[in-house]
Amino acid sequence: MSGERIIYLPLGGAGEIGMNCYVYGYGKPGEERLIVVDLGVTFPDMDGSPGVDLIFPDIAWLKERRERIEGIFITHAHEDHIGAVAHYYEALGAPVHARAFTANIARRKMEEFGHPENAVTTASAWPETVSAGPFKVGFLPISHSIPESSALVIDTPEGRLVHSGDFKLDHDPVVGEPFDRDLWDSVAKEGVKALVCDSTNVFSVHEGRSEATVGPEIEKLVAAQKGIVCATTFASNVARLKTLAEAGNRAGRSVVLLGRAMRRMVEAAVETGVLTDFPKTVPVEEASNIPRENLMLIVTGSQGERRAASAQLARGKHFGIELGEGDLFLFSSKTIPGNERGVIRIINQLSELGVDVVDDSSGRYHVSGHANRPDLEAMHDLVGPQIVIPMHGEHRHLREHVALAKGRGRQAVLAVNGTMVSLSGNKPEVVDYVETGRTYLDGSVQIGALDGVVRDRIRMALNGHVLVTLIVDEENEALGDPWCETMGLPETGRSRQSLVEVLEEELAEVIGRAGKKTMRDDAALEEALRRATRNAAQNEIGKKPEVTVVISRLS
Amino acid sequence: MSGERIIYLPLGGAGEIGMNCYVYGYGKPGEERLIVVDLGVTFPDMDGSPGVDLIFPDIAWLKERRERIEGIFITHAHEDHIGAVAHYYEALGAPVHARAFTANIARRKMEEFGHPENAVTTASAWPETVSAGPFKVGFLPISHSIPESSALVIDTPEGRLVHSGDFKLDHDPVVGEPFDRDLWDSVAKEGVKALVCDSTNVFSVHEGRSEATVGPEIEKLVAAQKGIVCATTFASNVARLKTLAEAGNRAGRSVVLLGRAMRRMVEAAVETGVLTDFPKTVPVEEASNIPRENLMLIVTGSQGERRAASAQLARGKHFGIELGEGDLFLFSSKTIPGNERGVIRIINQLSELGVDVVDDSSGRYHVSGHANRPDLEAMHDLVGPQIVIPMHGEHRHLREHVALAKGRGRQAVLAVNGTMVSLSGNKPEVVDYVETGRTYLDGSVQIGALDGVVRDRIRMALNGHVLVTLIVDEENEALGDPWCETMGLPETGRSRQSLVEVLEEELAEVIGRAGKKTMRDDAALEEALRRATRNAAQNEIGKKPEVTVVISRLS
Repeated sequence: MSGERIIYLPLGGAGEIGMNCYVYGYGKPGEERLIVVDLGVTFPDMDGSPGVDLIFPDIAWLKERRERIEGIFITHAHEDHIGAVAHYYEALGAPVHARAFTANIARRKMEEFGHPENAVTTASAWPETVSAGPFKVGFLPISHSIPESSALVIDTPEGRLVHSGDFKLDHDPVVGEPFDRDLWDSVAKEGVKALVCDSTNVFSVHEGRSEATVGPEIEKLVAAQKGIVCATTFASNVARLKTLAEAGNRAGRSVVLLGRAMRRMVEAAVETGVLTDFPKTVPVEEASNIPRENLMLIVTGSQGERRAASAQLARGKHFGIELGEGDLFLFSSKTIPGNERGVIRIINQLSELGVDVVDDSSGRYHVSGHANRPDLEAMHDLVGPQIVIPMHGEHRHLREHVALAKGRGRQAVLAVNGTMVSLSGNKPEVVDYVETGRTYLDGSVQIGALDGVVRDRIRMALNGHVLVTLIVDEENEALGDPWCETMGLPETGRSRQSLVEVLEEELAEVIGRAGKKTMRDDAALEEALRRATRNAAQNEIGKKPEVTVVISRLS
Repeated sequence: MSGERIIYLPLGGAGEIGMNCYVYGYGKPGEERLIVVDLGVTFPDMDGSPGVDLIFPDIAWLKERRERIEGIFITHAHEDHIGAVAHYYEALGAPVHARAFTANIARRKMEEFGHPENAVTTASAWPETVSAGPFKVGFLPISHSIPESSALVIDTPEGRLVHSGDFKLDHDPVVGEPFDRDLWDSVAKEGVKALVCDSTNVFSVHEGRSEATVGPEIEKLVAAQKGIVCATTFASNVARLKTLAEAGNRAGRSVVLLGRAMRRMVEAAVETGVLTDFPKTVPVEEASNIPRENLMLIVTGSQGERRAASAQLARGKHFGIELGEGDLFLFSSKTIPGNERGVIRIINQLSELGVDVVDDSSGRYHVSGHANRPDLEAMHDLVGPQIVIPMHGEHRHLREHVALAKGRGRQAVLAVNGTMVSLSGNKPEVVDYVETGRTYLDGSVQIGALDGVVRDRIRMALNGHVLVTLIVDEENEALGDPWCETMGLPETGRSRQSLVEVLEEELAEVIGRAGKKTMRDDAALEEALRRATRNAAQNEIGKKPEVTVVISRLS
């Protein structure tokens, strides 16, 4: 043995669904040449990350090894795989490789940041490969819910790895390449060391259904309507957009695509030749001139996003269109866990308008883009790897996927974000734990999730905020009484007096009692004022607010 | 006609699931004598009500008519029906009526507030009735997921109303009264003017299942385990607690009830004779001495509540008990929409501990307490009312329930919170819209949902908060430069200089440029400083914070 090794290191996506980022390395320990697979984002929520715009994996480990990065490979154009590619392009300084459709989306992102055109290289599908240091990387077509999704065949000097990407086994995906068993067989037959595998649907016990199965159901539904039909789905699901648009067309309806993301996806699919026969659409400006029974809207916002077209329509008139009695709103999508409140809000708003809503509960109008449990078993058998490493899942998914693989006689490793696994030799081995985490894009600034910024915001949201100001003169005497302002707190409490006055009275007493020593000492004075404010508030309104004390010294 | 009328007015629970509060009245318009049915709460969330402790219906309308209230009737002891009874007792000043178990729970709440023992009157079941002004009100037993749930038979001078309460048609509810068709027939046969009816499960198309069906499944599951079995369900589902405890006992396990709410519910059920044969339990202090295979924990926290026993156990050792490899955690409950994130967090934490988790996805270990669509149809037919008024549902549920009733040839009214419906004559008629809303319990203070307090908290959480202080002397000259403090904002932005310094430099310039007139005018000065702060922050960090300006004038 030369002392070289293959390493696998997830920095995002293993232990969560979102912000995928996986590192593969080959070389002497500490000197491995590296490739990065996917650079995704995840989305903030009010519970844990209020005010944050986007969440990225923390790539500090990669930045410190920047000169060792041979390339970045993007499996497909979903935001949780591609969303951080432009934000991190400069920090990583490595070429980005993707197939045509994905590359088209990546270039649009690069352009927004002023990165060069050639930052992204278009790769051809397997059997062509990209050389990246010790690796040869091939894009192996696999079906998913977006065009040109690919697994990666990663050939190393010590053998072949297969990184599944997000996938399902769909023989009729409507748009793009059907699952090609022979092609996969040809990859597998040379022997595969490790399969790093999507785990999203490991708890779904039935075989997955093809994208093609929803078409007839949607067609029936649309044909039966008399008013406007408005359908939402994931903007990137180009096959579904086509199915919906065709159903509209066949029912004699003009089709309007509403929402920037949706138009951009269709545009990219057409530009790259992925989509050749999308029905003709009509600009939204013309929609209000079309009789209701001849109109089909396909809109963004399947997850209840407040600014998306679905939410706008649910709130009332949008682009001159007003949904109402006799119209139908179809969720051709599932609600991602955590988004329920937003989706339900929209459904109720539509209900108030008199719109009939059909959602995914029947299972007829949506299919998942991920492999269910039997399909995962089929994939294991097809690839026949020595080792299965589950990825793209929360801990519960990874653990179940490991159990599934082991139960069927394979080696399997549960490696969450930060777990470095050596794949050399006959047995996978955890060789290191790397510090990982999340980076927040907040406005235009990247901040660490643990920097305390968001913690302070959450505290203000839970407890309110009191500002105390005090002026101290040259003799260390208070010039007037302390002054309070409150934000996010009730105006009055127990005593029915103004809360601000109650606090100011209390603080005036604190100052009256304060000795020379305290008055000289900013820290002691601040602490005395803060504690008194919190206690007085607790007594008056039953909660202890955040307190900021500003002492101005005239000197 | 004497000019009297019957009115129905929901103040909470119609247009949402939670904080139920329904008003019935009889008398001349504007002089109706009133009864209140249920006084519930709903729970806050970080999205819309951060820092809030509980949410009540706004009862301003009732308070203004306090002297006309004849009584408060509580159908059952779920928090969304009983939770506000003690908070609002003094404001309404009317006697509270409930059956024994519900009254027991209500008295515990009253006691915490120092209200008198006799604030709550225990009512007997139908055919006994309580007289309340022009009304005779009877508690008609009906099955649900808590003991002694009741519909109300409300007899008025113009006919009989039936308020269903929360219900299912369960002939074998394990604890408490089975659904008694004959009893209901006897109520219905005298003719019912209106059925005000639970709508929760109107979208569930299959007939509901009996509580008794989960016992054998739970028993099988528990019997197959080798480690600790830990199960969670709604604390108030006493029948389920019994089923779980019995399954544990039969498998040779000692049963520990963990969580205050759970012990309180069992206590109340035993005290009131509802529960006579609950298996012997063991104090939690003894749990760590019991071999794992002989231990069964029944714990609070089925909705992922952060402070409940389930969350504590998922985080690590709790009362000396540490779950791990080989143990089972059972959710014998469903996740209420909106609580998914919290529940999933716990499942993943348990997964990290190596605990196997079984949830409700199989449908074997939980049944709903509400009537499904076919059961609603059965109820309509059983009661045979002239009018159906759906309640206890979001808008989408009420609308669907109205459509269901109308589709089967009955009159039905969609009345959301604040809609006053006259039930006199042959046709229901909307006669008024009353302003309604939500009242927040925030610490110890009740605040209106629209008072702006919570809005300000949300703004601080989204945007951060900057405090600007400035001292102005007797000559209207700034004494030194403006001073900034930030909370919930990054320390540095675009320029990599300290954000506070960037803001202070900008504000010093603003003051340098400010004319005499501005310096004399607090409002103008504040506005200038606020705007400059927001613009400078936007430029530096890409977001516009909330700004509080404090100007101190030496005079």
